[in-house]
Amino acid sequence: MYSYIPPVDDYRFLLNEVLGFDRAMAEIGKEVDADLAATVLEEAGKMCAERLHPLNREGDEQGSRLIDGEVHTPEGFAEAYREFAQAGWASLSADPAHGGQGLPFILQLWLDEMISATNLSFGLFPGLTRGAYEAIAAHASDDLKAAYLPRMVSGEWTGAMALTESGAGTDLALLKTKAEPKGDGSYAVTGTKIFISSGDHDFGGNIVHLVLARLPDAPPGVKGISLFLVPKFLPDADGGFTLRNTLSVGALEKKMGIHAQPTCVMNYDGATGWLVGEPHRGLAAMFTMMNAERLMVGIQGLGIAGAAYTQAAGYAKERLQGRSADGSRGPVAIVEHADVRRMLLSIRAFVEAGRALAGWTALQLDRAHAHPDAGERAKSDALVALLTPVVKAAFTDFGFESAVQAQQVFGGHGYIREWGMEQFVRDARIAQIYEGTNGVQAMDLVGRKLPLAGGAVVEGFFAQIVQDLQAAASIPQAADVARRTGQALELLRGATASLRGAGVDATGAAAVDYLRLFALVSMGWMWTRMAAAAAGGDTPLHGAKLAVADFFARRMLPQAQALAAGIAEGEGPVMALAADAF
Amino acid sequence: MYSYIPPVDDYRFLLNEVLGFDRAMAEIGKEVDADLAATVLEEAGKMCAERLHPLNREGDEQGSRLIDGEVHTPEGFAEAYREFAQAGWASLSADPAHGGQGLPFILQLWLDEMISATNLSFGLFPGLTRGAYEAIAAHASDDLKAAYLPRMVSGEWTGAMALTESGAGTDLALLKTKAEPKGDGSYAVTGTKIFISSGDHDFGGNIVHLVLARLPDAPPGVKGISLFLVPKFLPDADGGFTLRNTLSVGALEKKMGIHAQPTCVMNYDGATGWLVGEPHRGLAAMFTMMNAERLMVGIQGLGIAGAAYTQAAGYAKERLQGRSADGSRGPVAIVEHADVRRMLLSIRAFVEAGRALAGWTALQLDRAHAHPDAGERAKSDALVALLTPVVKAAFTDFGFESAVQAQQVFGGHGYIREWGMEQFVRDARIAQIYEGTNGVQAMDLVGRKLPLAGGAVVEGFFAQIVQDLQAAASIPQAADVARRTGQALELLRGATASLRGAGVDATGAAAVDYLRLFALVSMGWMWTRMAAAAAGGDTPLHGAKLAVADFFARRMLPQAQALAAGIAEGEGPVMALAADAF
Repeated sequence: MYSYIPPVDDYRFLLNEVLGFDRAMAEIGKEVDADLAATVLEEAGKMCAERLHPLNREGDEQGSRLIDGEVHTPEGFAEAYREFAQAGWASLSADPAHGGQGLPFILQLWLDEMISATNLSFGLFPGLTRGAYEAIAAHASDDLKAAYLPRMVSGEWTGAMALTESGAGTDLALLKTKAEPKGDGSYAVTGTKIFISSGDHDFGGNIVHLVLARLPDAPPGVKGISLFLVPKFLPDADGGFTLRNTLSVGALEKKMGIHAQPTCVMNYDGATGWLVGEPHRGLAAMFTMMNAERLMVGIQGLGIAGAAYTQAAGYAKERLQGRSADGSRGPVAIVEHADVRRMLLSIRAFVEAGRALAGWTALQLDRAHAHPDAGERAKSDALVALLTPVVKAAFTDFGFESAVQAQQVFGGHGYIREWGMEQFVRDARIAQIYEGTNGVQAMDLVGRKLPLAGGAVVEGFFAQIVQDLQAAASIPQAADVARRTGQALELLRGATASLRGAGVDATGAAAVDYLRLFALVSMGWMWTRMAAAAAGGDTPLHGAKLAVADFFARRMLPQAQALAAGIAEGEGPVMALAADAF
Repeated sequence: MYSYIPPVDDYRFLLNEVLGFDRAMAEIGKEVDADLAATVLEEAGKMCAERLHPLNREGDEQGSRLIDGEVHTPEGFAEAYREFAQAGWASLSADPAHGGQGLPFILQLWLDEMISATNLSFGLFPGLTRGAYEAIAAHASDDLKAAYLPRMVSGEWTGAMALTESGAGTDLALLKTKAEPKGDGSYAVTGTKIFISSGDHDFGGNIVHLVLARLPDAPPGVKGISLFLVPKFLPDADGGFTLRNTLSVGALEKKMGIHAQPTCVMNYDGATGWLVGEPHRGLAAMFTMMNAERLMVGIQGLGIAGAAYTQAAGYAKERLQGRSADGSRGPVAIVEHADVRRMLLSIRAFVEAGRALAGWTALQLDRAHAHPDAGERAKSDALVALLTPVVKAAFTDFGFESAVQAQQVFGGHGYIREWGMEQFVRDARIAQIYEGTNGVQAMDLVGRKLPLAGGAVVEGFFAQIVQDLQAAASIPQAADVARRTGQALELLRGATASLRGAGVDATGAAAVDYLRLFALVSMGWMWTRMAAAAAGGDTPLHGAKLAVADFFARRMLPQAQALAAGIAEGEGPVMALAADAF
């Protein structure tokens, strides 16, 4: 394998020339500028390249194992995790009130990109801790916050989200885990959960499970679900966390990929827990962590695609096969062959636009938390809500497709394990499934996000795109991508109008294609902004941006036509066949 | 896992109502009618469902192992293989002159579909034997034929194709394996080959390797490659094959999937072999087996897609999550949800059109071998040559995408190993890579097959499509799919014209998208024919055909627009970026 190359130059370009980072930080009163941000990202990149990347292949081979009820993570993981936490990477974006560094989310998401690029299995430990942290910080009592948050922020303790049961995945209304009040303010939680990432490990420290369960008086359905904090170790009389709670790992799931990650079947046998938020309002609390996780999962797709690109481009520049197009030289590096370039450019056109869009979304997240004006906070919060399913689903779909294309560049060598390309494919696949399948994300986008504020949120988003396209129209090097993105945006607007008030079947028939169309337009928008910025520069990076923008506009954006045409067909072609004829 | 359901009803529909099987057989003087064919396929389906399917999951878990230089296939494989051969499944389409049954290739390809659906790793043993058989039958001396073919046809012995070396994959000009004449008509073959499927096993019997190597006086490049028959066991003085040849398994490749299949690193240490065909003309002999293999590999994609569909449809009809579209019932089977139907229909629309197109292509193969008129034989042979890269690449691309979609239907349960859905994805992936990557197939289609007979072959193919579309235009239930396919065909014709005489870079930039466009039109053609046939029927199968044809036409064919638009952009967007900027 080639070394991992952190995309710090690209981050710098985005911070300084595309996203207006310094201005955005000044607006929300954060004392961090692009130079400091780039320095943090550079250090993060070193850590990922030097500590996490080398553990990734062997972690896949060894996998996590369950021995006598105890999880053993692969060699080196526990030590790497402790270093990671001690160096402060677990606390980057957390609230200083709980011991965090309060750095902007854009740094967090790009750190997540590099972690996912180098070791997806590892990344789920800090990733889920952050999701649990968000839910506790937003919904738990002050006592629970004081007892748990500081050591989660420091990375001493980790978190896990226990939602799914074997009969209740997408449909949480069906869940059966019970919580009985014990009379002392705590509850006895009983049930079995599956697919619990980071459910246990051997890093030391407590593991804070957030468990969905039903109270005895719960109404049926999703309005009867409550959220409980169930730690692996309970507080003793001296304030230490030494008492083992009655939760245990029933099994580790045998999976397609992320083998190093201990995905647990968890048994809660009357385990002691405390209510987080209001009774029967667990879903609201759960969505706080789910939304944070969904952005992160999207970034996982981005990270793997970027890493796979690095490997495939490295290989393509070294592997000698075939002759030059004019037949005069051979063997030549396969990067000279048009079809290999097409594959590499497809990956790169997604990765660089995705990185920019993730950065833009993260800046909205910062505004939503910290802008002095409540109206601006609400506006940004709504944009994050709109973009979250797009980032989650489109980035993981493109991420998986990118991993597959990068593997293809290697030919037969991509299918054998040695080069790690097939691991990218196996690992990337999970991100399309967990934290709500990509079909669920698409339904969320069309069914819940488009109607936000009577459609004003999505219209506002489109208006911002139009504004940027118009600005780029007068820049020769950006005009073509702007024009083509504008055409795709018109198709998207038509599809958006056609889905207003659509029924469940019409929504479901169109949703996945609609989300992809939305993502293509959003990527075209970012390519337009990047091309406009690059037009003023003369470095190799600037030149490459213009070339990749051109590829995106001419080879990937045309897909918008096909998606719009399919969406326009409505529910008919999908609903006609009788259920028993499948 | 659900049981495998052999698609015998669909085969029967195609034989009787779509492909005109009886007439086609009469034309070439084969004494087999649709009833007999269906009976053979029914028996084949039983064998696959009852013998091969049950070995598939455990074969993946166990994998083939190399112990003290000996390959051990998973439990049950050797016994199943012997039964398979004894029941005559290895000899189905082989020439009666060598002990074969001489049944038409359409039965062979559909048998291959069911084998691939139930156990891809297993299928590579008879599959590669057949490829080796074809090359020996076409190019070897009568002595070699007499010595090796009968026991390969009976299945007592198996075959392997040893082409690839670590530095020579797509570009065989770089291969280094040497063959020195020993003075007695035999040669000493020395070199190391990688990725050798079925290179060794524990089924008993001889293994006939066909090895590409260079003679001492060989000119450089592909014009200096010869083909050698190198058996694991050499003939002794008594005519028995008891003498161990000096070839050995250096290692088994550790792969993403097809774990049960022993993919070997093979060492030939002065191994004794005999020339097959002319010196330095090994590539021509190799293409005889490659072409047979390429059709089979395409069918592998089809087979896995069909099997994955069966599993996903079974699960979707049983898994209860969510409420009905009007909210009145819940939980309902997920097959009621529009997005789940979309995924299932996408798979099915490929599988049924692919099955029909495979059947049509196989009938051309039968005509190419057995039609009394030489002109007709040549015409059919050219059509098979045209369709071979399409079947290989498009079927394996759609096959892989189908496996991924079927896995998605299972949500999280698709990612864990228990259900076998992730194995379909891992196994299907290899078919896009081996026997010439799908990029190489696309270059073959555009660069070598479109120019056949000055373009007359592809024009003849298009003319046949036009004729069938016109015939269907007057049938109300088939008119819409015919019209839409006609529109896609016009795009394909435009792309075909634009690629006439294109240079290597322009060809490479367009080829993969062109092949997919070609496949979509071919599938639309088959859906038109199936819809036209189904319009006259009133069974549930007929009704389902019309519904799936409608889905294909309205939801999948629109992709043709996007592909044509991308192709029209030429080489510019792909070639602009400097090689070192990747």
